[in-house]
Amino acid sequence: MPTLKISGFKFAGVACGIKKSKKRDLALIFSERPAAAAALFTTNRIKSPAVLVGMKRVRKGKVQAVVINSGNANACTGAQGLRDAEAVCRKTAAVLGIDPMLVVPSSTGIIGVPLPMDKLIAGVATAATRLSTAEFNHAAEAILTTDRFIKVSSATCMAGGKKIRIAGMVKGAGMIAPNMATMLAYILTDAAVEPGCLRFMLREAANVTFNSVTVDGDMSTNDTVLILANGFANNSPVKHGSKDEAVFLKKVQAVMQELALRLVEDGEGATKVVEIRVEGAKTFRDAKKIANCVARSQLVKTAFYGEDPNFGRVMCAVGYAGVRIQPEKIDLLFDRVAVVRKGVGIAALEKPAARVLKRPSFAVTIRLGLGNESASVWTSDLSHEYVRINSAYRT
Amino acid sequence: MPTLKISGFKFAGVACGIKKSKKRDLALIFSERPAAAAALFTTNRIKSPAVLVGMKRVRKGKVQAVVINSGNANACTGAQGLRDAEAVCRKTAAVLGIDPMLVVPSSTGIIGVPLPMDKLIAGVATAATRLSTAEFNHAAEAILTTDRFIKVSSATCMAGGKKIRIAGMVKGAGMIAPNMATMLAYILTDAAVEPGCLRFMLREAANVTFNSVTVDGDMSTNDTVLILANGFANNSPVKHGSKDEAVFLKKVQAVMQELALRLVEDGEGATKVVEIRVEGAKTFRDAKKIANCVARSQLVKTAFYGEDPNFGRVMCAVGYAGVRIQPEKIDLLFDRVAVVRKGVGIAALEKPAARVLKRPSFAVTIRLGLGNESASVWTSDLSHEYVRINSAYRT
Repeated sequence: MPTLKISGFKFAGVACGIKKSKKRDLALIFSERPAAAAALFTTNRIKSPAVLVGMKRVRKGKVQAVVINSGNANACTGAQGLRDAEAVCRKTAAVLGIDPMLVVPSSTGIIGVPLPMDKLIAGVATAATRLSTAEFNHAAEAILTTDRFIKVSSATCMAGGKKIRIAGMVKGAGMIAPNMATMLAYILTDAAVEPGCLRFMLREAANVTFNSVTVDGDMSTNDTVLILANGFANNSPVKHGSKDEAVFLKKVQAVMQELALRLVEDGEGATKVVEIRVEGAKTFRDAKKIANCVARSQLVKTAFYGEDPNFGRVMCAVGYAGVRIQPEKIDLLFDRVAVVRKGVGIAALEKPAARVLKRPSFAVTIRLGLGNESASVWTSDLSHEYVRINSAYRT
Repeated sequence: MPTLKISGFKFAGVACGIKKSKKRDLALIFSERPAAAAALFTTNRIKSPAVLVGMKRVRKGKVQAVVINSGNANACTGAQGLRDAEAVCRKTAAVLGIDPMLVVPSSTGIIGVPLPMDKLIAGVATAATRLSTAEFNHAAEAILTTDRFIKVSSATCMAGGKKIRIAGMVKGAGMIAPNMATMLAYILTDAAVEPGCLRFMLREAANVTFNSVTVDGDMSTNDTVLILANGFANNSPVKHGSKDEAVFLKKVQAVMQELALRLVEDGEGATKVVEIRVEGAKTFRDAKKIANCVARSQLVKTAFYGEDPNFGRVMCAVGYAGVRIQPEKIDLLFDRVAVVRKGVGIAALEKPAARVLKRPSFAVTIRLGLGNESASVWTSDLSHEYVRINSAYRT
């Protein structure tokens, strides 16, 4: 696939020897000038030192480089882990000739093992010499762990009188891959964007994209979504509440949505991507709570894998989501086949429903009949391959 | 195994043709006089009509017969389902010559298909003719769905100057078995117990037994735990707050604990029974919340199956349980092997820890270092067999 380019950003992806497979395991993202930055970090109370350091950096609002290693999550590593994360930033800053406070570190991989600092420090030096505008895909590859393929997306639009570009990369094959941790996403744009606007857009877009997908319901110690806007497009800065913001947000959301769906598609052992759509809820929050509950049910996910239109399991998960519902009002559809009407199962429709389940991608729509709000969550099935991947002893 | 007997109770377990396998699928429990009753029903907002009818009956405080069918859950069956549940009670009352308001119905099995009433009504008549003090085990067999074995337990103690007996049976192999629904438990005693005391004991005992086990985290539309006390022991009634109550509660808890552990042991595809113990919490609620979160993590459960002492996944689940913790205070042990101390992983102990994981049963202890409260949750592993059972298309 042709590599993405975006003004003022350079990339590198090298193999520094953390992964035994000798695959690329160190990525560098560099902006030719400090970029406006916003980020969302894991809400897990056990955070990787990389996340703790990243949070501090992003709070200042400007970031110029991101250094990401795969193969080791630098989590449950105590005070040493924190010193290591800081040292990686200092080294990166030194080779790039920038302030260490402008460097964000990310780590993903095995938990509880100290970072192999010699390899990492040497890798940073090598990566810096390889920085190029054409190395986007190599960087996207270097952040992977058990992922089967690189996941990138891009979009363009007009804002502030200029054509601007957005590009993103993501890794993550379970919310935590085997012994590995993390969903990491980096969204880059050459637009000039005011800091408040950037934070708003990231939050809004993540809510209906990265925060609306689930593979196994586990949330890692390292999850990070970072957006950088370096202003190379020379547009007049996008302001919060402006028309430009609305246009731009749509595009950011489209990029994040594509990345999020590719995450589910690449979910460990996934053979299907299923949209769980809840309609007719009183609030968005209720709708999403129910969609999440169905999307995470092991019994629902194994039924998807078995291509079994088992509406009883879906109804059951709807019932224990902790949202007030009226069972006798619920309709349930597999794509366009309504298998439950007014809370009552329609056994006669099982065959057409079974045909829907054979599709690689389909929607389960739950109509609550209580209001006008809706939400979707995308999920994968739970397969033998998931168990195989996740039960294999770490090697 | 020798069948359990308990004064004043008769049992039957027959095959009435709901199950295609021709296995027993209809159980009757009959007390020679109305018994004091207390029950806990599913908190799922979608409840089987059997549960709705049972709730009404138990509210009156007296129950004399329980009629249970397996093979069909009578759930998502609308108004017809409610009429059917009432009709089964009326038929049972008629053949036993008692008031229909003294009959509790239970159903477990496939969701969304109306009960085969002809078979059921004929089955009730047959079962009534077979009622015997020696048929406990046949009844315990007739309530099963995908369970691999019957699950019964009993205990005796002195209360009110008399020797009293407690016996229980349970079914359930997932919180919901494939296309099947439900954990059903019936606890019977010949003691005389005051109603308030009975309700208190059931709630207390369930909290640390049935409400502290998980197989797949799904909660069925039919879950029921019913306790009946018929007073045939002629003891002076056990009162709430009495010394007798404390003695008696311990025994009820022991019976329910054994049944609960056998549930996990018989969990779909389970190869291991694991106690997740959280110590040093500020509150019992916090401790149980964290234990539940770890016990339900797909990644933790697949690691158990793989016999992988993957403490990173456990720590991760501790972190997202939604409880305030201090990561740097946490110790984590697999049986007696401490793999995390003060939040830092100890890689050198991986080999002894791996030996613990090979055991069919072990404990994961998480010490938070924040207070004096503790809680345990028992869970099974997540195996290939679980996926096979639950993805197999219904036949």
